[in-house]
Amino acid sequence: MTQNSGQAPRVLDIAIGLHTSGTREESDSLGAVRVPADHYWGAQTQRSLQHFDIGGDKDRMPIEVYRAYGIVKKAAARINTAAGSLPAWMGSLIGTVADEVVSGQLDSEFPLFVWQTGSGTQSNMNVNEVISNRCIQLVGGELGTKRPVHPNDHVNMSQSSNDTFPTAMHIAADTMLHQHVLPQLDDLQKALSDKSRQWNDVVKIGRTHLEDATPLTVGQEWSGYAAMVQDARDALVADSSGLPRLAVGGTAVGTGLNTAQGFDGRMAEAIADLTGRPFVTAPNKFAAQGSLDALVRCSGGLRNLAVTLFKIANDLRWLGSGPRAGLHELVLPSNEPGSSIMPGKVNPTQAEAMLMVAIQVIGNDTTVAVAGKEGNFELNAFRPIILANLLHSMRIMGDMCNHFRRFMIEGTTLDKRRIKEYVDSSVMMVTALSPVIGYDKASAIAHKAMDEDLTLRQAAIACGIDAEEFDRVVVPLAMTRPGPQAH
Amino acid sequence: MTQNSGQAPRVLDIAIGLHTSGTREESDSLGAVRVPADHYWGAQTQRSLQHFDIGGDKDRMPIEVYRAYGIVKKAAARINTAAGSLPAWMGSLIGTVADEVVSGQLDSEFPLFVWQTGSGTQSNMNVNEVISNRCIQLVGGELGTKRPVHPNDHVNMSQSSNDTFPTAMHIAADTMLHQHVLPQLDDLQKALSDKSRQWNDVVKIGRTHLEDATPLTVGQEWSGYAAMVQDARDALVADSSGLPRLAVGGTAVGTGLNTAQGFDGRMAEAIADLTGRPFVTAPNKFAAQGSLDALVRCSGGLRNLAVTLFKIANDLRWLGSGPRAGLHELVLPSNEPGSSIMPGKVNPTQAEAMLMVAIQVIGNDTTVAVAGKEGNFELNAFRPIILANLLHSMRIMGDMCNHFRRFMIEGTTLDKRRIKEYVDSSVMMVTALSPVIGYDKASAIAHKAMDEDLTLRQAAIACGIDAEEFDRVVVPLAMTRPGPQAH
Amino acid sequence: MTQNSGQAPRVLDIAIGLHTSGTREESDSLGAVRVPADHYWGAQTQRSLQHFDIGGDKDRMPIEVYRAYGIVKKAAARINTAAGSLPAWMGSLIGTVADEVVSGQLDSEFPLFVWQTGSGTQSNMNVNEVISNRCIQLVGGELGTKRPVHPNDHVNMSQSSNDTFPTAMHIAADTMLHQHVLPQLDDLQKALSDKSRQWNDVVKIGRTHLEDATPLTVGQEWSGYAAMVQDARDALVADSSGLPRLAVGGTAVGTGLNTAQGFDGRMAEAIADLTGRPFVTAPNKFAAQGSLDALVRCSGGLRNLAVTLFKIANDLRWLGSGPRAGLHELVLPSNEPGSSIMPGKVNPTQAEAMLMVAIQVIGNDTTVAVAGKEGNFELNAFRPIILANLLHSMRIMGDMCNHFRRFMIEGTTLDKRRIKEYVDSSVMMVTALSPVIGYDKASAIAHKAMDEDLTLRQAAIACGIDAEEFDRVVVPLAMTRPGPQAH
Amino acid sequence: MTQNSGQAPRVLDIAIGLHTSGTREESDSLGAVRVPADHYWGAQTQRSLQHFDIGGDKDRMPIEVYRAYGIVKKAAARINTAAGSLPAWMGSLIGTVADEVVSGQLDSEFPLFVWQTGSGTQSNMNVNEVISNRCIQLVGGELGTKRPVHPNDHVNMSQSSNDTFPTAMHIAADTMLHQHVLPQLDDLQKALSDKSRQWNDVVKIGRTHLEDATPLTVGQEWSGYAAMVQDARDALVADSSGLPRLAVGGTAVGTGLNTAQGFDGRMAEAIADLTGRPFVTAPNKFAAQGSLDALVRCSGGLRNLAVTLFKIANDLRWLGSGPRAGLHELVLPSNEPGSSIMPGKVNPTQAEAMLMVAIQVIGNDTTVAVAGKEGNFELNAFRPIILANLLHSMRIMGDMCNHFRRFMIEGTTLDKRRIKEYVDSSVMMVTALSPVIGYDKASAIAHKAMDEDLTLRQAAIACGIDAEEFDRVVVPLAMTRPGPQAH
Repeated sequence: MTQNSGQAPRVLDIAIGLHTSGTREESDSLGAVRVPADHYWGAQTQRSLQHFDIGGDKDRMPIEVYRAYGIVKKAAARINTAAGSLPAWMGSLIGTVADEVVSGQLDSEFPLFVWQTGSGTQSNMNVNEVISNRCIQLVGGELGTKRPVHPNDHVNMSQSSNDTFPTAMHIAADTMLHQHVLPQLDDLQKALSDKSRQWNDVVKIGRTHLEDATPLTVGQEWSGYAAMVQDARDALVADSSGLPRLAVGGTAVGTGLNTAQGFDGRMAEAIADLTGRPFVTAPNKFAAQGSLDALVRCSGGLRNLAVTLFKIANDLRWLGSGPRAGLHELVLPSNEPGSSIMPGKVNPTQAEAMLMVAIQVIGNDTTVAVAGKEGNFELNAFRPIILANLLHSMRIMGDMCNHFRRFMIEGTTLDKRRIKEYVDSSVMMVTALSPVIGYDKASAIAHKAMDEDLTLRQAAIACGIDAEEFDRVVVPLAMTRPGPQAH
Repeated sequence: MTQNSGQAPRVLDIAIGLHTSGTREESDSLGAVRVPADHYWGAQTQRSLQHFDIGGDKDRMPIEVYRAYGIVKKAAARINTAAGSLPAWMGSLIGTVADEVVSGQLDSEFPLFVWQTGSGTQSNMNVNEVISNRCIQLVGGELGTKRPVHPNDHVNMSQSSNDTFPTAMHIAADTMLHQHVLPQLDDLQKALSDKSRQWNDVVKIGRTHLEDATPLTVGQEWSGYAAMVQDARDALVADSSGLPRLAVGGTAVGTGLNTAQGFDGRMAEAIADLTGRPFVTAPNKFAAQGSLDALVRCSGGLRNLAVTLFKIANDLRWLGSGPRAGLHELVLPSNEPGSSIMPGKVNPTQAEAMLMVAIQVIGNDTTVAVAGKEGNFELNAFRPIILANLLHSMRIMGDMCNHFRRFMIEGTTLDKRRIKEYVDSSVMMVTALSPVIGYDKASAIAHKAMDEDLTLRQAAIACGIDAEEFDRVVVPLAMTRPGPQAH
Repeated sequence: MTQNSGQAPRVLDIAIGLHTSGTREESDSLGAVRVPADHYWGAQTQRSLQHFDIGGDKDRMPIEVYRAYGIVKKAAARINTAAGSLPAWMGSLIGTVADEVVSGQLDSEFPLFVWQTGSGTQSNMNVNEVISNRCIQLVGGELGTKRPVHPNDHVNMSQSSNDTFPTAMHIAADTMLHQHVLPQLDDLQKALSDKSRQWNDVVKIGRTHLEDATPLTVGQEWSGYAAMVQDARDALVADSSGLPRLAVGGTAVGTGLNTAQGFDGRMAEAIADLTGRPFVTAPNKFAAQGSLDALVRCSGGLRNLAVTLFKIANDLRWLGSGPRAGLHELVLPSNEPGSSIMPGKVNPTQAEAMLMVAIQVIGNDTTVAVAGKEGNFELNAFRPIILANLLHSMRIMGDMCNHFRRFMIEGTTLDKRRIKEYVDSSVMMVTALSPVIGYDKASAIAHKAMDEDLTLRQAAIACGIDAEEFDRVVVPLAMTRPGPQAH
Repeated sequence: MTQNSGQAPRVLDIAIGLHTSGTREESDSLGAVRVPADHYWGAQTQRSLQHFDIGGDKDRMPIEVYRAYGIVKKAAARINTAAGSLPAWMGSLIGTVADEVVSGQLDSEFPLFVWQTGSGTQSNMNVNEVISNRCIQLVGGELGTKRPVHPNDHVNMSQSSNDTFPTAMHIAADTMLHQHVLPQLDDLQKALSDKSRQWNDVVKIGRTHLEDATPLTVGQEWSGYAAMVQDARDALVADSSGLPRLAVGGTAVGTGLNTAQGFDGRMAEAIADLTGRPFVTAPNKFAAQGSLDALVRCSGGLRNLAVTLFKIANDLRWLGSGPRAGLHELVLPSNEPGSSIMPGKVNPTQAEAMLMVAIQVIGNDTTVAVAGKEGNFELNAFRPIILANLLHSMRIMGDMCNHFRRFMIEGTTLDKRRIKEYVDSSVMMVTALSPVIGYDKASAIAHKAMDEDLTLRQAAIACGIDAEEFDRVVVPLAMTRPGPQAH
């Protein structure tokens, strides 16, 4: 096309911003549209705003995908320039503006809603239009003319929304996983692990079915929490292993129409270079565009993590319940007054928030999975909803891990008096006797203790157990490990 | 308490706003906290902001619940004044400020996040603190002193978060249902019904299992859509029948501690009076505070509606598919260009948005249901997440019905040529022959037509059916109703 | 058709059963098939068995739908006979065999799996084939000849799977709801209500956020459970209000093709007559066949009930936890030993089973909702999965309510000593002081009690509260109702 | 204990079976119970049957877990014998009977329901009781005496349900994954891949948003399916990577109480030896017993696979729709007649069954995830429901992959005439012109073609494009790959 040629215009030093008011005419293949004169976006963005103002601020397309799109546009400009398809000045200019997108300086130019076309085309065109007009501004052109930098022919060169939108989704998800979720999760895991070591020798009563069971140490219990989180973390990483595979280069339906040979691989390399993450080209573009399975799996990994964290937070709020009519083995931090009517009340609010976040992540994952299965033919047209729910889950999960650690885990202490009382009064210590006297006799002792409100020792002696043997065999700390309990 | 007495101070005419900078000291039972001097909120709001800044703007507690809370606070001030518990001037003053809350003028004073204490106490205290300080401002007092209007003793008088938060939830949900969801849904239903009437006589091929079936009219098909929506609408109303029952008056655990006899009923009456909606006091406060079942059921009704609308939107995008390699019985409006790479492409974007909204509502409902079952003892401490998901579903569902109607249903037309071609070529017209010649012979004719690529008429005649009888029996329009097909 | 005419054959008195071995040839429009000679089913059933033996016994189509189908076939034979379309002897004969289906005598003849055609056609044909061959047997004919009673032309006369399968689904669901779920649920509700009355005056500590709160009576707490169940029950009935509307008469695509005028209404009347339930013809057959919304809503009602019952069962297992290191306000029945290793252990197993049933119902409902939205055009082809999950939910929910009542609720007693200890030691009794001395002073007393491990009374007196006033104001029983606590 | 000592009794050669009638007395710590005399089970099994007959045959505990339990019991007998804790004859005898359990010969002795104690204790005791009594039978003892082989003291030696039930769950799940799901999935993947190669050069129209798009080959489309399945398969294996970690050795609460040092590792080795699978001891028993996260993750992997297979089956039924009023690019096998009323109808029934199976797996996974988060303290007491849903998903998914391949994929052929017609009539071929003439001009041509019902070539020429250039650039096969389309 002749549009690509021509002399390199001078790039002006103009700060971001359009200091006009009223509207400006922009156009697309359906005709002319008036857009706000103080914004860079063009006709297709404006049409989307008119047809899709559904919901409120909660319903904006996540800004992270636009920043990721900046990387895609910069990489494409670089590759297209190198291939001689874009003039060098234009490639460079697009790259410069793409950097403005990446850095967040143009965030206010991306106003679209999640509830739009299922391919994300309107968001891609939003990026194309903004970059086009910002480029035009920088070379002193007239906004809306698409000259000399055309949103489709140049900014979108060799690209389709169908391949670039999932590419930007993968970049955004991978980034949030590695920069936000995993660091916060690792810190939480370490905090749990630290507590486990700290309380390694404090014997407490175990509970199964909520009922008194045999003892373990507080440290052992927390080592379980730390191990669960570590396992969930490792599994989340495995579930996210499809994120580095990028669809870009597949264009409209996965065939790579209107790209040069090798464009896909070069794009992945450029994106890897720009992000420092091991992105590669997806080995099969029809799968990469026809499904969103890699993202569904990532969401599943977050769902699994939510299952784990729900259990831990739930345990902790129960262990901290009371102070007088609850279990109260743990003393949770008092971060704020707990009641508007009950003076002095303190509640396990961080745990409650974690439970809610976990449930939200589970619900978001249902949304993602149901949407994930709805792809048809060469496109899964449920991208915006998958993106929005996945990134939301990541955002709140990472933040919550941070807060849960800082405002709950780190400040938790033990009510050692209560812990000891439970151990001392427990009937389930009888289990240590079982290998010595048999399950049936041991049962009889336990039932006697419960029925007659005796201590286990009293009941055992009443049943003919030698007091000395009892004391030799029923040793709480010894019961927290394998090997002969008696000593 | 002595705080309640005293002379009535003069109420000044001060516009909303605190024109200072820096911070101000506020306090609660855990001690002093510095809050931004240009905001009305107090210590507990500030503590929540510090401990619960989880997520972003998507994660703010929905503003609707604060506006509903304004109604609760106004009603309580009125009742407490009438009972002589609040001085008249103070009741009136709280009512005045509550009106500012209701009208949205104080929206910026409610910054808290969904991820907070599960009772919503922090949001209740946010309201109490803001009203307290705004009252103090209006009588020339010193912010943060809690004098002469105390957030707990006066604004929260006879109340707990435990009863008022679900009360505000019910008011907010009921309001959005009746002011937003149902009107938009009714308009959509009417649009579907109008189309049904308009296309009452256009015969088209039916499809079952996606495969060609016997004919019906386009109007019949759309009458089904209209009926489904009407049924879902009626069911949603039934599922929301618990919303008018209010928990207020139960205070801390449902007993009504610290309220006067009959406070609950008077509060419901006052709220009904202030809103024009038939609110009543919940017949059992332990149920109303220990569960959130009424809201879970409302969410279920929205879920069911989403199921219905998904089916309809999905049908319509398929019926509009093509234009050349799809079904293309319908011509959907061209609202925007469909592709960044494929020139001239038009996509069923409103339908896609509806499908996504429907899935989101289903996912949100999973969140609500899972949270709904997690109540413990006298409180379900998963209120914020239930509120946020329920109101979000209502918001996007109402908006989407509006857009779907305006930008899709109303502009849809028929491709009558294509519709007729399908009818003319169909083999399943053979079904009309079945009562005459028996199922087995009719099957043989159909298979012959398909195997040898004949029209049904050709195949029937080849199988020995009299042409005249065929023409008498196989009449598409006649096949769209009961009664003898032949004439 | 000539098949319909002819002399009435003599009906023989032959017991159900085919005492032959090996196979018999049957045929359908795709050709001949060998079926087991000792079964009545024909070619289409056999084809389905071959192509769809997926899963195991868990995966058979629920027998209830076949028994309901018997009612449909009997009603159709009656109407068709009255209309002169079927000879009287044949209508009568089909009715006789249909009764055998309804009564369960032919249960072994319905072996098909849930995972089959989405319309349920194979199950309809299974019924048609079995009735046809059993009729043939009874008039001394040759099985598999379809003479004189043809599965399609006679047993299926004026019917399609598309209208009759959802009709049978509705009948089966309505039956199980009214004969199983509601009676069991009502008994459970009554048992909860009885306990509530029994323990009306036992004061206990309330708990919010799992933390100690103000008191209520055990009877009040259980009145909440009873009210929640009653509300869920009423809502379930409302959610099931679409079940009496029957699709039958719509035939292939809802138009009523191949039926006589008024066939639909007469069928509904006949089914109402045969079942004693208020069945009516669906006002819009396109909705009734194109969607399964009435069943989705019924499932939603069960889901909501599951949410309610989960909460109650969960509370009860916690309140029974211990016996020494748990809350142990309740003494749950000891139905069985609780542990293979811990002698004497007793667990809240009925509550655990209820929790699991509730979760299963929630999961089943997700399945139903996702399937419910997948209908296309004139048919929702996800009927078997919706039927199977809905009936499964009903079966286990009804059974579980029965067991939960008999083996848990009815045998539960109170640990009154523990209940009193909690009340006596509680700090949250301070709430009664709040209206007298103000929230802030009351808070200080509460914190002092907790920090210094004092009783509330001790702390209050240490803070300057008059002992007499304390005793006048802080009266647990008085705190369980509105009105002035002090006396 | 003295029970362990004594002379080795002679082991008799008695076939499985108890040829008596009536009942026999058995006992446990709660007293005596009468059990059917023709069954091996004892008191605890009988108590469970009485208290938990909830649901029907669908609701039995999956038999696979009992067979896996046989492996656990055999391994424990081996280790306990080697440690000198069990007499050699008894270890050998228990091992012999355990083999009978493993092989399925005792299947009828395991009648319990899923809805039982959440730990699976009753099923463990069922195994212990059956093995005990069968051992007693084999040495000529009296059933129910627990002598000489006691269900708790010997069969359950060094074990708790709390560690062995999840161990049996892992073994059962791992077995079904590797022996059933993966082989069937691999065969399906290969069949898709074979079709992809077979149709490598058949050009077809692509579809995005259901709307006509640029072309690809049928082989490319199916290569996407094959790649999606391969990815889902690999991810499922990764999601199942926790299955080989076994809890056994943790006993009651994870501490290993009542085991010898190293018992856990030796058990894992023995189980690995008996199964040929790489089982290892779980590195943290508190995590392995307190959560069921490894199983939740496995279920998530199946859920993700279901998402993938839903998309593929859905595509295929749409591509096969018609024959005359649908897309009909594919000719799906005619496995059975499709309609009871429409003669000659054929439906995509295998695809429908796959869609339903996929939805069921998604619903089952919701059940698993919700249950997975509900663990409390040292035990997740929602094991039976997780086991039942996970194994059900595996069973139907494996079977369905088999049937889908055999009865659908392998028999699918192309309707090449229809495929070519779509390509020839497509307007989206204009995309190839876009890089040459620019997006805007290309759009104008496309809209002209659609508006005026022209072929693309006609419209292009009318817009001034040179016919020769058009033919050079717009070449369908060339458009299915990168690189210059023109040649």
